[in-house]
Amino acid sequence: MNAPDKTWNTLQADRRARLERTGAVLGRDLDGKAVPSGRVQDLLHSVLACGDRVCLEGNNQKQADFLAAALAGLDPSRINNLHMLQSVLALPEHLDVFERGVASRLDFSFSGPQAGRVAKLASAGKLNIGAIHTYLELFSRYFIDLPPRVSLVAAEAADRNGNLYTGANTEDTPAIVEATAFKNGIVIVQVNRIMDTLPRVDIPGDWVDYVVQSPKPYYIEPLFTRDPALISEIQVLMAMMAIKGIYAEYGVERLNHGIGFDTAAIELLLPTYATDLGLKGKIGRHWALNPHPALIPAIESGFVESVYSFGSELGMEDYIRARPDVFAVGPDGSMRSNRALCQAAGHYACDMFIGSTLQIDLQGNSSTAVVGRIAGFGGAPNMGADARGRRHASPAWLKAGAEARGERNTIPRGQKLVVQMVETFREHMQPAFVERLDAWELAEQAGFEIPPVMIYGDDVTHILTEEGIANLLLCRSAEEREQAIRGVAGYTPVGLGRDRRMVENLRDRGVIKRAEDLGIDKRLATRDLLAAKNMKDLVRASHGMYEPPKRFRNW
Amino acid sequence: MNAPDKTWNTLQADRRARLERTGAVLGRDLDGKAVPSGRVQDLLHSVLACGDRVCLEGNNQKQADFLAAALAGLDPSRINNLHMLQSVLALPEHLDVFERGVASRLDFSFSGPQAGRVAKLASAGKLNIGAIHTYLELFSRYFIDLPPRVSLVAAEAADRNGNLYTGANTEDTPAIVEATAFKNGIVIVQVNRIMDTLPRVDIPGDWVDYVVQSPKPYYIEPLFTRDPALISEIQVLMAMMAIKGIYAEYGVERLNHGIGFDTAAIELLLPTYATDLGLKGKIGRHWALNPHPALIPAIESGFVESVYSFGSELGMEDYIRARPDVFAVGPDGSMRSNRALCQAAGHYACDMFIGSTLQIDLQGNSSTAVVGRIAGFGGAPNMGADARGRRHASPAWLKAGAEARGERNTIPRGQKLVVQMVETFREHMQPAFVERLDAWELAEQAGFEIPPVMIYGDDVTHILTEEGIANLLLCRSAEEREQAIRGVAGYTPVGLGRDRRMVENLRDRGVIKRAEDLGIDKRLATRDLLAAKNMKDLVRASHGMYEPPKRFRNW
Repeated sequence: MNAPDKTWNTLQADRRARLERTGAVLGRDLDGKAVPSGRVQDLLHSVLACGDRVCLEGNNQKQADFLAAALAGLDPSRINNLHMLQSVLALPEHLDVFERGVASRLDFSFSGPQAGRVAKLASAGKLNIGAIHTYLELFSRYFIDLPPRVSLVAAEAADRNGNLYTGANTEDTPAIVEATAFKNGIVIVQVNRIMDTLPRVDIPGDWVDYVVQSPKPYYIEPLFTRDPALISEIQVLMAMMAIKGIYAEYGVERLNHGIGFDTAAIELLLPTYATDLGLKGKIGRHWALNPHPALIPAIESGFVESVYSFGSELGMEDYIRARPDVFAVGPDGSMRSNRALCQAAGHYACDMFIGSTLQIDLQGNSSTAVVGRIAGFGGAPNMGADARGRRHASPAWLKAGAEARGERNTIPRGQKLVVQMVETFREHMQPAFVERLDAWELAEQAGFEIPPVMIYGDDVTHILTEEGIANLLLCRSAEEREQAIRGVAGYTPVGLGRDRRMVENLRDRGVIKRAEDLGIDKRLATRDLLAAKNMKDLVRASHGMYEPPKRFRNW
Repeated sequence: MNAPDKTWNTLQADRRARLERTGAVLGRDLDGKAVPSGRVQDLLHSVLACGDRVCLEGNNQKQADFLAAALAGLDPSRINNLHMLQSVLALPEHLDVFERGVASRLDFSFSGPQAGRVAKLASAGKLNIGAIHTYLELFSRYFIDLPPRVSLVAAEAADRNGNLYTGANTEDTPAIVEATAFKNGIVIVQVNRIMDTLPRVDIPGDWVDYVVQSPKPYYIEPLFTRDPALISEIQVLMAMMAIKGIYAEYGVERLNHGIGFDTAAIELLLPTYATDLGLKGKIGRHWALNPHPALIPAIESGFVESVYSFGSELGMEDYIRARPDVFAVGPDGSMRSNRALCQAAGHYACDMFIGSTLQIDLQGNSSTAVVGRIAGFGGAPNMGADARGRRHASPAWLKAGAEARGERNTIPRGQKLVVQMVETFREHMQPAFVERLDAWELAEQAGFEIPPVMIYGDDVTHILTEEGIANLLLCRSAEEREQAIRGVAGYTPVGLGRDRRMVENLRDRGVIKRAEDLGIDKRLATRDLLAAKNMKDLVRASHGMYEPPKRFRNW
């Protein structure tokens, strides 16, 4: 029955062999765990083996760009067929690795800017996609069936013992390093500085094998910065409807906002419109959210009590440091983020997720997938799903659950509010409402098992457009649901295909609510309501502590 | 609009004041961050304030018992009305804190051994329950709306700078410490030893304020040890049905097992029955599971490829150290567990959860809640729920999803397998199937908003009893579902109330499968199939490396 000849420490032995090999190659250039940046390719050539599962820290924001470039520059005759694990593919180097034949397989979460190239390389047979994941799901697999053999990550600073200071932009680093270090993998870190004493230790040196000081600081994308100057009056109107028709209606105290101008408009209306409605202290108290600059006025007005973050946001460092009651700031005064824990917090400890999408079908399924682009969804499917393992109650959660169940003979339970907020037409007059998602065609093209849906219709509780709010919780049949969606789909073909009588009936029942049903005077929906009208206003609101990246400065 | 007089650093200032106060009280007794054990109550009296939110590390296994006793012994005229955050209430001291008036409010996850006393103290008005959570849900709230002001945790060893070695029993510690340290809270750790050099650092000293060497090692409960001698032949039969009718049927490669003899029987049949069926390498390859001793034979036979754990298990230390390819072992050779990450892994990276319960109703809702005992569910509701934020496919997940959707006009998706495995009658001839869960009555008694359900019926995919397997995925109406459940409920009143014709029809359609339908010869369901028949066999299978706690040794 037993396997008598089985070796039980292949990973340990392999790890030891790699470290010895690398020690021999680098020789005296190794200073503790510090490797000179000029020898990074020697490090990678000696530490890696063909076919390795390699986790490269490409995040939503922070990028291990120096290591990514080094990896892309390896000799494919020596190192090839790597299996890349990566939450975000953001940089050209992330795809060069495949183009050059160093890597051949990919498991990932999101590839926004590189989605077109992912599709091209995949159809050219140079990139074999394992699966597209949500963030927490991908991290989870690092611990179960996809442990990284070698991880390449980024930190702010390290000491020569490999202790890391990740600072505010911690993001994915702890999850990646933990999964690798505790499966006898090898952890290599690019750092902006090697210091004798770190401001604080975020990751113990015992978990880290090599640190390399990068010639320039790691690249970081200010992904969550939205210039208030670009918010339209339609978006102001939608934000008013969201606040009055959903936030106030359910008393949403803990929440997560998706990325985009629609939710930025809501953030900028909290100190003005929401405060005038007497909602301060009643809604939007606790957030699972990156430090959105658009949230500054709401923080300054005392509307927001706490913010816990997945990552940080460029330019917000000094402001965060001055607001330690609000952000997750350590004893040293700088923030720590943690994408894995914040995804859990967004899923389990928040009553609502609200975000945008590109397409919604007649069942309420939504997707940002577009033909010719293999993009993935990051964290939205996790946050935008009912947390069925949640058991603590809150008024918002109970009310949503009660509405969904109505008089039906099911055991009472709560439900998460999941709101999709879209204008009926997006850029280039593309309708946001469609009979069939592009995801179907993409799935066929790319050979996916099932169409890539971002948020499934049965998790969506409300759809909000400039035409009104459809409360899907109150729909009692697939037909009602379809008409409720058509009823807010405006002049799109889906909207024009509505059954007018049924839509009016749904409106009478409060399933559909127009601005006027909510007592909102559309004429008041002007940009004057925004607590900040441009980037300069945000800087001013922060008392000069927010320093927007250059591209957002036009003064 | 702004709040000009607002102070933004109350937490930092409060933290500083507490540390100064404590420094003054402890004076020269403080050696770095080390506090003499004799001064632990002085430490707590000075560092705590009335009404504090205090997270006490009561885990499933590891207990900060020395700090718990010190807390319970505080002077309630000085320290009172604490709000306790605790994943598990396991020790009498955990309730003494309320009995003595030191604490008055509680948010928690599980209280197995203390559930009766929780109920009594609650009805006496001495303990005000905020909510009952699942583990990951409770940790999530630590980062959003319930940040601990002071945390009392346990580790294996510390150095004088507060660096912690948690070793194999890491469990909740990293999540608690991270939430506290990065909200300017105070972290106090009881350790078994203070050392100059730690085997490895698990938690950086910068996150820790005080360490106290406990007079004796922290208490740890061997919660996942099941003596194979107590496994019945009914359980062997059920395990055979599980393996052939579910594991093999769906090709379940990644999974989590609940606690108990039912699943221990499955673990012990992998090297025998499952191997004979040719299932090695096809099922049960990757596990989110504590190091169950009952899994040793399956590990030794090469059936199990990897195990990632929430916590460790007493007596398994040497065995784990000798099997580093299987467990999550660090560069130092000892395991690291992590309950938060393993809960995520169990939810997102596993295709199946299988566990037991006390009661199942006609909709398939299950609960272990019993009148007079307020117990909670720990991790089961999280693991035993469809992971709606999952997007990667596997054959098991796709097949379950396809069965659930059938020909219906919904977008295709996968689904998690959630199996409830019960004998139709449990101890004292209590039926496992009921018309109405006791949870309803408990909710009324305890004033809960909704009945405490462990796993909701719409997440359950299969119910397995000695009478057969009901595949709820294939049911097409509430009535079919009810009859499928009745059809495996044996001689319980629920089982006797079945519509015989409908049940036979469900059997013809393969919705219900009896042992004989699966080609299982019941006469072969004997204890001879168990790869280990008693504790000594487990020790033998481990080559003497597993050292069972004394209470499990009868030789």
